Amino acid sequence: MSKIRIGIMGYGNLGRGVELACKKNPDMELVGIFTRRNPSDIKPQTCGLGVYSAKDAPDFRDKIDVMILCGGSATDLINQGPEFAQYFNTVDSFDTHAKIPEYFDKMDKVCKSANTTSIISVGWDPGMFSLLRVYSESVLPDGNTTTFWGPGVSQGHSDAIRRIDGVLNAKQYTIPIVAAIDAVRNGKGEGLTTRQKHLRDCYVVLRDGADKDKIEHEIKTMPNYFSDYDTTVHFISIEEFNKDHTGMAHGGFVVRSGNTSDSAHHTVEYSLKLDSNPEFTGSVLLTYARAAYRLKNSGAYSVLDVPPSMLSVKSPEELRKTLL
Amino acid sequence: MSKIRIGIMGYGNLGRGVELACKKNPDMELVGIFTRRNPSDIKPQTCGLGVYSAKDAPDFRDKIDVMILCGGSATDLINQGPEFAQYFNTVDSFDTHAKIPEYFDKMDKVCKSANTTSIISVGWDPGMFSLLRVYSESVLPDGNTTTFWGPGVSQGHSDAIRRIDGVLNAKQYTIPIVAAIDAVRNGKGEGLTTRQKHLRDCYVVLRDGADKDKIEHEIKTMPNYFSDYDTTVHFISIEEFNKDHTGMAHGGFVVRSGNTSDSAHHTVEYSLKLDSNPEFTGSVLLTYARAAYRLKNSGAYSVLDVPPSMLSVKSPEELRKTLL
Repeated sequence: MSKIRIGIMGYGNLGRGVELACKKNPDMELVGIFTRRNPSDIKPQTCGLGVYSAKDAPDFRDKIDVMILCGGSATDLINQGPEFAQYFNTVDSFDTHAKIPEYFDKMDKVCKSANTTSIISVGWDPGMFSLLRVYSESVLPDGNTTTFWGPGVSQGHSDAIRRIDGVLNAKQYTIPIVAAIDAVRNGKGEGLTTRQKHLRDCYVVLRDGADKDKIEHEIKTMPNYFSDYDTTVHFISIEEFNKDHTGMAHGGFVVRSGNTSDSAHHTVEYSLKLDSNPEFTGSVLLTYARAAYRLKNSGAYSVLDVPPSMLSVKSPEELRKTLL
Repeated sequence: MSKIRIGIMGYGNLGRGVELACKKNPDMELVGIFTRRNPSDIKPQTCGLGVYSAKDAPDFRDKIDVMILCGGSATDLINQGPEFAQYFNTVDSFDTHAKIPEYFDKMDKVCKSANTTSIISVGWDPGMFSLLRVYSESVLPDGNTTTFWGPGVSQGHSDAIRRIDGVLNAKQYTIPIVAAIDAVRNGKGEGLTTRQKHLRDCYVVLRDGADKDKIEHEIKTMPNYFSDYDTTVHFISIEEFNKDHTGMAHGGFVVRSGNTSDSAHHTVEYSLKLDSNPEFTGSVLLTYARAAYRLKNSGAYSVLDVPPSMLSVKSPEELRKTLL
């Protein structure tokens, strides 16, 4: 059996996660890493792996079956997606929720004209959690779905704190609130506010001479990021930060609670506990690369459009025999 | 929008569950119930609903989009599946694991020649749990999956006790063992024996003059059903049985624990807590009827072959906008 030839575009935490995932999937062959940085500055974890300039990627169109786009949504994917879909089947983790419909349409147009296949918004949310929301709502139409994130590190919220003047480093933990979880599990989750569902816990290292009170106030009142939540700010030393707050653990869960009749209530719950958000996300991206390679029709897809059997290294017959 | 016209073949607990589910899905229209009993003996929960003899079902081939087969696997579905797939798109809950590949092949042949679509082995296990096993193994290939059932009523084990001479009624509860659950969640579940994972708890009503000790021994040593488990037998009165042991609650969970690298361990868990096993299973069957109606190619399918978006009453655009 010939292997599925994989390219990685962008070599940050996520790109490294995809690289590690390739070692766990014997039907995959990692062809190379593509970067906008100077290729000689990149040291892959895989011995002997080629690193190439992003601008040379089109030369690899016959050597790579699926290019996995590992940039961020806001500034990278929005342009890289349509650009790379001209040459490659792609998988990406586009997660700017409000722009998903527009991004999907754009990718679909490019893919259909280039005869390529792209699966967008892959990971755990959007991704695995989206799947569970759709399955659960479909099988229990009379009910409510709630998604809890954490306990875990929010990269976006950590970045927002780091952009404040006087902050040297920062980590933000999103923590689901136990009382809300219990209410949701018991079918009493409707109407819970944002503040009732999650806490935000921040660990901040200040620069010399920074104004502690001003920064705490600025964090807690930051619109979109913190103002709708109960937020705790801890100021710590750089030593403590480096010792205790460099992890990338995350997770969360989707709960649907619903009724099939007046007397029968049901709860469906899906949870993830992840030691490393980028490694798990990278592994999910690689799994969907298998589907992008197998899907017969060109165009854009999301995880919702992909039959589960297309994700497995096992054949449909073997799946029916062993996992059904 | 024209509704999807549903028929129910077989009116036991599961058939009643599908009937209830029709009330929760506004895009579905229940056309009638089909039975091998005398139709006039059946009292549907739905006012004015037609009840027909199973042998007249072929006359309805142009009036029903999907026939949901609600019989048992062993004696009903094995014959009814291929018979009804000649005339209808079908959905069933075939769960005799060892015979799934053979049943699938037979259904696929009939469907392709009759130009119909059948989705087999639908419910929660096989069904939702199968989906989770495939998703979890695919995204975490280096790991272990364990399925726990219960706490809940096993119909098959309850039936097995009732077949013992001297037993008037019986209910068997399958109970997952907490120590095993903890081990699995911590990635230490490999090699757990059958006995270490589940207990079997039996509530038995004796006939007058039955030999208690002999029956207890017979239950605990019954091969396939009880001999591999730690089994507890409680003898109770018919009054206590009718008061406390008529429920059909069930549930369980699928846990996959795996690594993406030496330093990153992840746990994926999917759980169901169901007040009524047949009502939830009926609701899942009806959801897959929507997919059976929408699938373009004739043939047999399992839940593993169906894209999640086909299950939802929402359009793909709406799903991307609201649930992705």
